[in-house]
Amino acid sequence: MKATILNIGDELLIGQVVNTNASTMAKMLTEAGMEVVRTLVVGDNRDEIWNAVDEGMKTSDAVLVTGGLGPTKDDITKKLLCEYFGSELVESAVALDNVKRIFAARGYELTPVNRAQALVPRCCEVLNNDLGTAPCMWFERDGQVLVSLPGVPFEMDWLMRNRVIPKLQEHFRTGRIVTKNILVQGIGESFLSDLIEPWELSLPKNVKLAYLPVAGMVKLRLTERINPESPGSPDNPDIPGIPGVLPGLYVLAGKYIVGEDCETLAELVHKTLTEQGKTLATAESCTGGTIASRLTALPGASAYFRGGVVAYSNEVKECALGVKHETLTAHGAVSEETVREMAEGVRQRLGADYAIATTGIAGPGGGTPEKPVGTVWVAVSTPKRTVAQLMHYGDRRQQTIDRTANQAYAMLVKELGIRN
Amino acid sequence: MKATILNIGDELLIGQVVNTNASTMAKMLTEAGMEVVRTLVVGDNRDEIWNAVDEGMKTSDAVLVTGGLGPTKDDITKKLLCEYFGSELVESAVALDNVKRIFAARGYELTPVNRAQALVPRCCEVLNNDLGTAPCMWFERDGQVLVSLPGVPFEMDWLMRNRVIPKLQEHFRTGRIVTKNILVQGIGESFLSDLIEPWELSLPKNVKLAYLPVAGMVKLRLTERINPESPGSPDNPDIPGIPGVLPGLYVLAGKYIVGEDCETLAELVHKTLTEQGKTLATAESCTGGTIASRLTALPGASAYFRGGVVAYSNEVKECALGVKHETLTAHGAVSEETVREMAEGVRQRLGADYAIATTGIAGPGGGTPEKPVGTVWVAVSTPKRTVAQLMHYGDRRQQTIDRTANQAYAMLVKELGIRN
Repeated sequence: MKATILNIGDELLIGQVVNTNASTMAKMLTEAGMEVVRTLVVGDNRDEIWNAVDEGMKTSDAVLVTGGLGPTKDDITKKLLCEYFGSELVESAVALDNVKRIFAARGYELTPVNRAQALVPRCCEVLNNDLGTAPCMWFERDGQVLVSLPGVPFEMDWLMRNRVIPKLQEHFRTGRIVTKNILVQGIGESFLSDLIEPWELSLPKNVKLAYLPVAGMVKLRLTERINPESPGSPDNPDIPGIPGVLPGLYVLAGKYIVGEDCETLAELVHKTLTEQGKTLATAESCTGGTIASRLTALPGASAYFRGGVVAYSNEVKECALGVKHETLTAHGAVSEETVREMAEGVRQRLGADYAIATTGIAGPGGGTPEKPVGTVWVAVSTPKRTVAQLMHYGDRRQQTIDRTANQAYAMLVKELGIRN
Repeated sequence: MKATILNIGDELLIGQVVNTNASTMAKMLTEAGMEVVRTLVVGDNRDEIWNAVDEGMKTSDAVLVTGGLGPTKDDITKKLLCEYFGSELVESAVALDNVKRIFAARGYELTPVNRAQALVPRCCEVLNNDLGTAPCMWFERDGQVLVSLPGVPFEMDWLMRNRVIPKLQEHFRTGRIVTKNILVQGIGESFLSDLIEPWELSLPKNVKLAYLPVAGMVKLRLTERINPESPGSPDNPDIPGIPGVLPGLYVLAGKYIVGEDCETLAELVHKTLTEQGKTLATAESCTGGTIASRLTALPGASAYFRGGVVAYSNEVKECALGVKHETLTAHGAVSEETVREMAEGVRQRLGADYAIATTGIAGPGGGTPEKPVGTVWVAVSTPKRTVAQLMHYGDRRQQTIDRTANQAYAMLVKELGIRN
């Protein structure tokens, strides 16, 4: 099944907004077993939209359209689709009830402009938008499908997940899709690829592998298509599915696998600490609060995160973390001795079970011949021991910060006993 | 001048990568006075690329293509463009010198595969890519232009800025563009729009205004086109340019303007503290390290940033910041009293001139009838005084964190005496 994604909006064409809708939709469609052949963006211009819709309908089985459904004058998609499908606008009871419900919940009065949002082409089916007033419209013609969604990312996301994808899967009988993430750390993408090549080549054709490298970590995503007509696993034990192929990956790359079923290492740390009921403190120099901020971005972090110190200056390393003045003088701020004292100091002072510490030279300034830009020490302190590791990253500041954070999360997860 | 952007890559069609290239390029083209009429993405598929190139050439004056130039087998753009323009591949001395230079700098040996990167269609002009081995190619036909760039974002960005945009401006005589950012905080986008409407309507047609709202802050971007043939300001004093219209904005909205010429409030804080030679410390509860991490992401932050405490638990607020136990018991962690003691405590303990503190309920849990989710206190402590402000944000966690950070930065800039 071939799909085209069409995102409408002047704000996308002037570069004011990054088109995250296209990638979100493409990912969902791909994981649901559909093939996205093209994504395109046009402005709020009738001819441009018409041509793009028409091209999509000529070359794809399904066209997914976002944007142009709000109550303002720029929003012309609905009228255009009505004309394109040779229909007429009528008030939809489903859409009107939804608009009324949302206005009542917000305590606003319904204006004629907003009531007009319930007008839809007679020939379409309205898929209820629980999160907003713009209707989601499903059109069919000779087996082809066009879906029009609002462009607001969280409404689009919810509608795709809960309404559009299930309906597309049913309509095109694309089957069910199962995915699994495996987080790999401590090995570069190309070395990993060489290492697991024999396993990758042996994968059955119902299981696909994608590499998603991010800041020193590689997320492997396995996707398994389960076709209702010719079932693979788990319905057919003769065809190995994800559970059947996974052990082979561990045989080759097990020592680099940090965890499964999370999108990021921060999420894996969050999940593990929550499950184990253990607490964490952080002492960050070169990462400057990044390690803490990615954990506290996740709801529920207060259950395990006691707090942290961003120890940017040496004085703060001494006064807030208890790093000894002699240690800093003798070994410098970027040293194994300092990073160990930082981790142990913050663990004790903040009364946490575990602690992370980082110190390094993110650059561009501050490098020396012995400790060039990109030199970073990471330590993890536990109730049993403190481990420290020296890393050499490059001269790109944000990349060094991101890699250091991932290195610290991976070391912590290892200490938490998740990694085998 | 109408432009089409074409980004090539399977990774974009499966949603593995967000297509930031499209928005970066669209923004640069728009600011340089060109009109982007369409952006599209196709996979590494010959027919799809051919059709997209051909459509672009039929409907635009310029087509900007990224992707498909690397040394691997998927990269078919170069051969296809050679065929499209009826040319033949020849080794470019300019491109070969560049490949040799880059390999020499990295200490690698030049392989035949890499040498082949210097092959380009005879009919194109090579624009030198200082940052990578893939050549940037400029094609012309009957006044129309097609530019092929590598898809690696930092190479594309550098080439667009330094090679492509200036050459397009010269070729299409689009004139020079001047832009100015004005950071506005403490007023919503729609209220700001109403407030400055009379000024906006009075803008001369060589000056355009764009609203870029981000997390409680609105960035206003003024863009002035300076046409070499009918010069506006500063070449023609009769036509007011940005310097001429700016005072009118301050008359209406001056009290909400925090600063100029920065992309973010973190950048404005960074610039101001660096210029004034003052130091900063942070005490973050609900923002969990975000305020510190955005400052330390900027090179040179160590000149003014002494450090911070992420005081997530009450114990840390007491032990690391010196918030009094009675204050927490009597008023709670989310209170004016606590946030003031946090700001004053961290300023004293870390020996900084200025300090920021935040405490609040980011949600989704932790709300009460008196202090619902979204209740946030922000304080700034200075050598002269401590100011605190209560904010009510909604129930979206990341948005509350981002807005709180921007509120804190804006309050600090005000105290630093930048805001009038």
